[in-house]
Amino acid sequence: MVDSGADPRESVAAMANTYAVIMAGGSGTRFWPASRQKLPKQLLPLDGGDVPLLAATVRRLAPLVKPEHVLVVTAERLRAATLAACPELLPENVLAEPAARNTAPCVAWAAQVLAARDPEARVVVLPSDHAIADPAGFRAAIEEALTAADAGFIATIGIVPTRAETGYGYIELGNVLGNGAAGNAVARFVEKPKKEVAEEYVASGKYLWNAGMFFFRASVMVDAVARHLPSVAEGVAKIVGARGTSEEKALLQSIFPTLESVSIDVGVMEKEAKLAVVPGSFGWSDIGSWLSAWELAAKDDQGNAADVGSFVIDGERNLLRSYVPGGGKTITVIGASDLVVVETENAILVLHRDKAQDVKKAVELLTKHGRTELL
Amino acid sequence: MVDSGADPRESVAAMANTYAVIMAGGSGTRFWPASRQKLPKQLLPLDGGDVPLLAATVRRLAPLVKPEHVLVVTAERLRAATLAACPELLPENVLAEPAARNTAPCVAWAAQVLAARDPEARVVVLPSDHAIADPAGFRAAIEEALTAADAGFIATIGIVPTRAETGYGYIELGNVLGNGAAGNAVARFVEKPKKEVAEEYVASGKYLWNAGMFFFRASVMVDAVARHLPSVAEGVAKIVGARGTSEEKALLQSIFPTLESVSIDVGVMEKEAKLAVVPGSFGWSDIGSWLSAWELAAKDDQGNAADVGSFVIDGERNLLRSYVPGGGKTITVIGASDLVVVETENAILVLHRDKAQDVKKAVELLTKHGRTELL
Repeated sequence: MVDSGADPRESVAAMANTYAVIMAGGSGTRFWPASRQKLPKQLLPLDGGDVPLLAATVRRLAPLVKPEHVLVVTAERLRAATLAACPELLPENVLAEPAARNTAPCVAWAAQVLAARDPEARVVVLPSDHAIADPAGFRAAIEEALTAADAGFIATIGIVPTRAETGYGYIELGNVLGNGAAGNAVARFVEKPKKEVAEEYVASGKYLWNAGMFFFRASVMVDAVARHLPSVAEGVAKIVGARGTSEEKALLQSIFPTLESVSIDVGVMEKEAKLAVVPGSFGWSDIGSWLSAWELAAKDDQGNAADVGSFVIDGERNLLRSYVPGGGKTITVIGASDLVVVETENAILVLHRDKAQDVKKAVELLTKHGRTELL
Repeated sequence: MVDSGADPRESVAAMANTYAVIMAGGSGTRFWPASRQKLPKQLLPLDGGDVPLLAATVRRLAPLVKPEHVLVVTAERLRAATLAACPELLPENVLAEPAARNTAPCVAWAAQVLAARDPEARVVVLPSDHAIADPAGFRAAIEEALTAADAGFIATIGIVPTRAETGYGYIELGNVLGNGAAGNAVARFVEKPKKEVAEEYVASGKYLWNAGMFFFRASVMVDAVARHLPSVAEGVAKIVGARGTSEEKALLQSIFPTLESVSIDVGVMEKEAKLAVVPGSFGWSDIGSWLSAWELAAKDDQGNAADVGSFVIDGERNLLRSYVPGGGKTITVIGASDLVVVETENAILVLHRDKAQDVKKAVELLTKHGRTELL
């Protein structure tokens, strides 16, 4: 896929008060054996490019958000790997959670940090592990959403659906906002629907996919969390109050794990009235499985995607990938199609694409058998 | 498969004048990437056991032929690897060919060496890379064939066919020999037949598979080669005349590569009159491809054969094998069937069993691209 960089369609320079918060705490198992507890999905190149998804996310934002304005929230155990995967991050901008508490404490923490740093801060919150085929279109949508944030809304970008997907939540479009704010009001958020319902949503043209992107003035989010999740707001305030002092780490360790574990969607968005949504069509993918990785990869005429040196004889639609530092073994597929073949330092996976969701079964089996070296 | 060792059906001790010549010069490509130019098929465990095929061949013979009576003819470049694969071989019993000249010079050389060593020598000539499910039955057939050898015949064991195979030559049974010699005369040798012809052969009950096994008194073979391939006999005589002297190596290097390159079948057997054949049914396989290796492997209820630690989820009839010294990577197959997955130190092969004959295409491609590290 195309990656960041300036584009003639874009006229806006990086904005002085614009910040980004990248949520990078995931520890998915769907990309085993490439993804491991110490090397989750966002630290791997899975979008057809050659840099980790997190780094691609940061670089894609570069025309809008300066690297020193990018915060990354991740798990404490992933701090070093996160900085290694994205060297332009400032170490002090990595917020390392001592325990996973879902996204509301994460967003609350980052919003308070930024509000303290810059009272005028406007914030772009993004997942770290998605693919975007059209980065300029993506940035244009962000700029629209920021107009709503400037007007005091908590905004989101809803992806215009391309299929009746049952694996995502949906956002129902409300009225057009106007008054300088792009987008629409949010009529409601809906959980993952059944197939027939999803089909109705897509046919109606009134529903968008919830892609977990949020845009707000830092002070607006701080206020919203204080209203909807007061105990989270209080706990985070104690941690942020000690930021940069010798007490910060101890407070973080003692308080953060006690915060209510709830998503920003459920904890704030679904309770908030002043919401905006901007429709987006920029080739978005959440890269949900190895099948997505194949879809995003550069392929030959037979639909095969292979590392240099590896090859397919008499087969179609295969993905051949080595994730061994310094280069892996030569992978050869003969007479087989629709396979994902992945090599890592201590594992080889051969997966039929129709069973891409079953990778977790392997992880479960290895966990059960105590094969921790493979997890 | 079951391996050598004494068996209550056998009453015969190792015979003082019985020798074996194991032909181990093959450099097949059908087991790539496990088989390499420097590690051909006979040096790999491919029959379901855990020792190289050559070692299994020697050990299977042990109740009939003492290890110090076993000669192995191989290529000069494979001498060290051959001794490593079968440590009970005496180094002086490895006849190392400086060039491949097919099987007639090989057999002629070994026969002259043994005739010089023991005028009463009787010789068992076997390929090094076959599988035998019933070693005791195999040895019983050898003992029968040796009765014909004792009576002055050049004998062979013909495998009772279990299918209308078009990949083997056939031997037509002649009259029963009698007079203390087991088996039948050979009516004729036939080359690989077409399917319809093979079906007729099998239906007739008069045809056996030619498995390249020969039994004779050393003096009888020396005489036969002298009559049918006199130049080969003369050249070999010069080499054997210098055996154990400082001149041997130079003579071998200068003469052997000039000998007529012809098979023992074409060069001697098809011209010889005094031939015997003993039918054999002992679970023979020439292990012609990875499909054969799967057939011979120990399998679970789903037909999967995997190294310890590797596993299949939701798939059948897969063969998962690592040929990395010290242990390979964990191989996991999810949702795929009928695959051969092989790991070596620098290659991974994923092969559909229906395309087992196409492994040579990969070798050809790698050769064309100069990937010598993989050959």
